Amino acid sequence: MRISQLSEKSGVPVATIKYYLREGLLHDGVLTSATQAHYGEEHVERLRLVRALLDSGGLSVAGARAVIEQLETPHRHVAEVLGIAQSSVTPDAASGIELDRAAGLVARWGWGSDPGDTASLGALEHALAGLDAAGFDLPEGVLDQYAAHMAAIAAEEVAEIPTESVDAAVRYVVLGTVLVEPLLLALRRLAQQDASGRRFDYRGPDC
Amino acid sequence: MRISQLSEKSGVPVATIKYYLREGLLHDGVLTSATQAHYGEEHVERLRLVRALLDSGGLSVAGARAVIEQLETPHRHVAEVLGIAQSSVTPDAASGIELDRAAGLVARWGWGSDPGDTASLGALEHALAGLDAAGFDLPEGVLDQYAAHMAAIAAEEVAEIPTESVDAAVRYVVLGTVLVEPLLLALRRLAQQDASGRRFDYRGPDC
Repeated sequence: MRISQLSEKSGVPVATIKYYLREGLLHDGVLTSATQAHYGEEHVERLRLVRALLDSGGLSVAGARAVIEQLETPHRHVAEVLGIAQSSVTPDAASGIELDRAAGLVARWGWGSDPGDTASLGALEHALAGLDAAGFDLPEGVLDQYAAHMAAIAAEEVAEIPTESVDAAVRYVVLGTVLVEPLLLALRRLAQQDASGRRFDYRGPDC
Repeated sequence: MRISQLSEKSGVPVATIKYYLREGLLHDGVLTSATQAHYGEEHVERLRLVRALLDSGGLSVAGARAVIEQLETPHRHVAEVLGIAQSSVTPDAASGIELDRAAGLVARWGWGSDPGDTASLGALEHALAGLDAAGFDLPEGVLDQYAAHMAAIAAEEVAEIPTESVDAAVRYVVLGTVLVEPLLLALRRLAQQDASGRRFDYRGPDC
């Protein structure tokens, strides 16, 4: 199909498609003349993915490009993918900050971590520093509970990683990391409303 | 103290402090002459909070302003605060989209929700749509597990809300909502690394 048809089918404006092509988020079509290219179903699918990453995933163009590069790179080992996927979508806040506290916690919980991925440890250290800076006192017991729940979630998620091909695993891990995050946060907020309603028996501002 | 001393004590450059003053993130000091103002300890503390919201919380200036407004507004009821806090920091993605699926899930889990807060339901609907668009098949059982863990987390969090004053509760809820999110996401990623290491027995790219 031509770019105008691709636009119609995907709902993405032609100018935006051209932008994605320039930014490397969408692979070129097959040239049919000097000025025209042919696009296929895989372009429609890719556009859907790009929109999901930018929109729901909240990624920057550079972040989405990193994810797509991961999806297209052949990998040697399923587990290798996880670290690469995570560090490609985690801004490395770790550079130059001490990771002692995060590393200490992870050790206390008995978690093995990917020594090459300081980005996730850095994100933990950063989040804790933010709570400190805001004067928010998070009891250690609550932190341990968070860790326990996330460990249970992660165990279920990792058990679901398909192993029939490394590509399928990469796709699952990368998208599961990026696109499930907003899902979990939305669920937490809704669950808080429920729990709050139960504790405080609140029925709206006018009751 | 003068603005230069405030800068020194807080580590925030004078130009940035002036920017926060203009944007309403920091309250004015007490004028001591036509061109000089006096700042106190509460300004140092506020600067720490602003940095935490912008930096760890990942909020925009408008988002941080909304949070600070909540912290400064007198509230009538602790539970009222939760919805306001959440909607002030949740971009309302719900406008114009159907919320049927999200509402159906919440009903299935037996969660009561704040009818005035469509933002959180919208965020759930949005996250699910993103997974669909990317062709990521999330089994219903996994979604239910996510919900169960988030319900357990929320119950613990809501139980921790202090009730000695509405102000203390507001502070706890608003900061707990915004600043704990990056913490949970960092924990999930680290827990995934641990779970992945256990499942795939992976010790680095060169083993």
